[in-house]
Amino acid sequence: MLISKLGEFGLIDRLRKATRLDSSVIKGIGDDCAVLKYDKAKFQLFTCDMLVEGVDFSSRAQPYLIGRKAIAVSISDIAACAGIPHYCLVSLGVPKNTSVEFIDKLYKGMVEIANKYKINICGGDLSRAQKLTIDVSMLGLVEKKNLVLRGGAKKGDIIFVTGRLGGSIYGKHFKFTPRIKEAQFLTKNYKINSMIDISDGLIQDLSQILKESRAGAVIYEELIPQSRAARNLSDALYSGEDFELLFTMPPQEAARLIRKKLKFIHLIGAIVKQGCGLILVDRKNKGETIQAKGFRHF
Amino acid sequence: MLISKLGEFGLIDRLRKATRLDSSVIKGIGDDCAVLKYDKAKFQLFTCDMLVEGVDFSSRAQPYLIGRKAIAVSISDIAACAGIPHYCLVSLGVPKNTSVEFIDKLYKGMVEIANKYKINICGGDLSRAQKLTIDVSMLGLVEKKNLVLRGGAKKGDIIFVTGRLGGSIYGKHFKFTPRIKEAQFLTKNYKINSMIDISDGLIQDLSQILKESRAGAVIYEELIPQSRAARNLSDALYSGEDFELLFTMPPQEAARLIRKKLKFIHLIGAIVKQGCGLILVDRKNKGETIQAKGFRHF
Repeated sequence: MLISKLGEFGLIDRLRKATRLDSSVIKGIGDDCAVLKYDKAKFQLFTCDMLVEGVDFSSRAQPYLIGRKAIAVSISDIAACAGIPHYCLVSLGVPKNTSVEFIDKLYKGMVEIANKYKINICGGDLSRAQKLTIDVSMLGLVEKKNLVLRGGAKKGDIIFVTGRLGGSIYGKHFKFTPRIKEAQFLTKNYKINSMIDISDGLIQDLSQILKESRAGAVIYEELIPQSRAARNLSDALYSGEDFELLFTMPPQEAARLIRKKLKFIHLIGAIVKQGCGLILVDRKNKGETIQAKGFRHF
Repeated sequence: MLISKLGEFGLIDRLRKATRLDSSVIKGIGDDCAVLKYDKAKFQLFTCDMLVEGVDFSSRAQPYLIGRKAIAVSISDIAACAGIPHYCLVSLGVPKNTSVEFIDKLYKGMVEIANKYKINICGGDLSRAQKLTIDVSMLGLVEKKNLVLRGGAKKGDIIFVTGRLGGSIYGKHFKFTPRIKEAQFLTKNYKINSMIDISDGLIQDLSQILKESRAGAVIYEELIPQSRAARNLSDALYSGEDFELLFTMPPQEAARLIRKKLKFIHLIGAIVKQGCGLILVDRKNKGETIQAKGFRHF
């Protein structure tokens, strides 16, 4: 049987089932970050992201932007758990015929965004490879009381996204600002029940929240904030790499948040009971159950 | 200019120079692990290793052994800093036509050695790739008083290795036992001034100690412990992936250690002043200065 039959999430589940975890692991495989015991007030967050030439960026992409993105995607994972990033390691697989100028620009992209977020690039590994491959592993900290995971959505929660969705492939996936500040603002001032960063598309990542929370959701076509680069609704729903936050909170909290009239906050729907599945209501007020679909490696 | 001209270590130095570190980083790029502030008694160790098909293992290698090795090499890095490993993440780049059976065996190899060392596999990333690529990032802890780095070798130190060297390519690189126990024994009972794991060959890794410690060394051909698989002395000196510990300690401590007559401990030489370089004394008692040489990716 080929892995394409099992799919990306099937493969991950298979590893999750095979592993044994001790009680110092608050959350293992299956969230944006692993959550580990740290000290009285904080948990440690641990995450990694692998970018591969020809999959996550084209061979003609600017090295500066590739480097920037390699670090930014992991920052986004830390943001999704409401943490602050502190350290990272960079594993680089590099084709033999790469120029030093290319590597210098790649480093520059990494170092600039790392400095901006006060992240220490404190090690790594270098290997020969056929295609440029970058794996960044990152450590951060989160106040215990602020930690938000995918599995906490509750019936009645209102669903929000930060920013606008779709068309990231036309540029944003290289230049997005990881939502550290917004996640801090939200978790410090509101009770957030669940959160994820949108890397595989709104529908697929919302489905992750629903799966982990054993819940359903209703979202409204006319409320989905489409970015200028999005060609259509489908783009906003299914195309990946927006790196915006998708989160849910109780209605009273949502009301407080809405009153703030923050430009980057968009209400898109509500959490319902699991049996309802995921329903998209169109502009004629007709609901349709939709399947999880979005970017998958296999 | 191609990166092959700058070389692997030149490339790493270039990133090291570009990065900015805060005071919570005890040791950044340039040792087996990054060393981070943790609590009163301990430092945190953070390391990663990337294995690429066709470079670190052949496409015909058994998946169980590939998985085992991917975890074992990072354990060896933690051992080299005298730490205990606790958590790891696994980033996998997998070709599309891979079978589920292959992945299951790969996982099995990872999980078994992780369980043996009580390491929690608590997350990862999965990506499509042309060649199987595995990057494992690992966290561990080390008692502050036990931490050993590459840069602490002192003139007069005696140089030791654990185990026998050379010919690892014929099997040991897949089946070696990371030297956690030995590193614990050594650092708990003796004053160790510097340590590294031999991954790129004795001479190259000893050169790393000498460079970081600003020291020279004299080693003796007849004292180099050759493994049965080693074809000749050169194999024991230059071939990589032995994953043994190379360490130095003051003479009085060395005398105590030698009196123990431990089978796995081999004295190979002594640290001298930097100006002497690295001298290999042959069986006719003739010294020859040798250049750092061993496995390099570029």
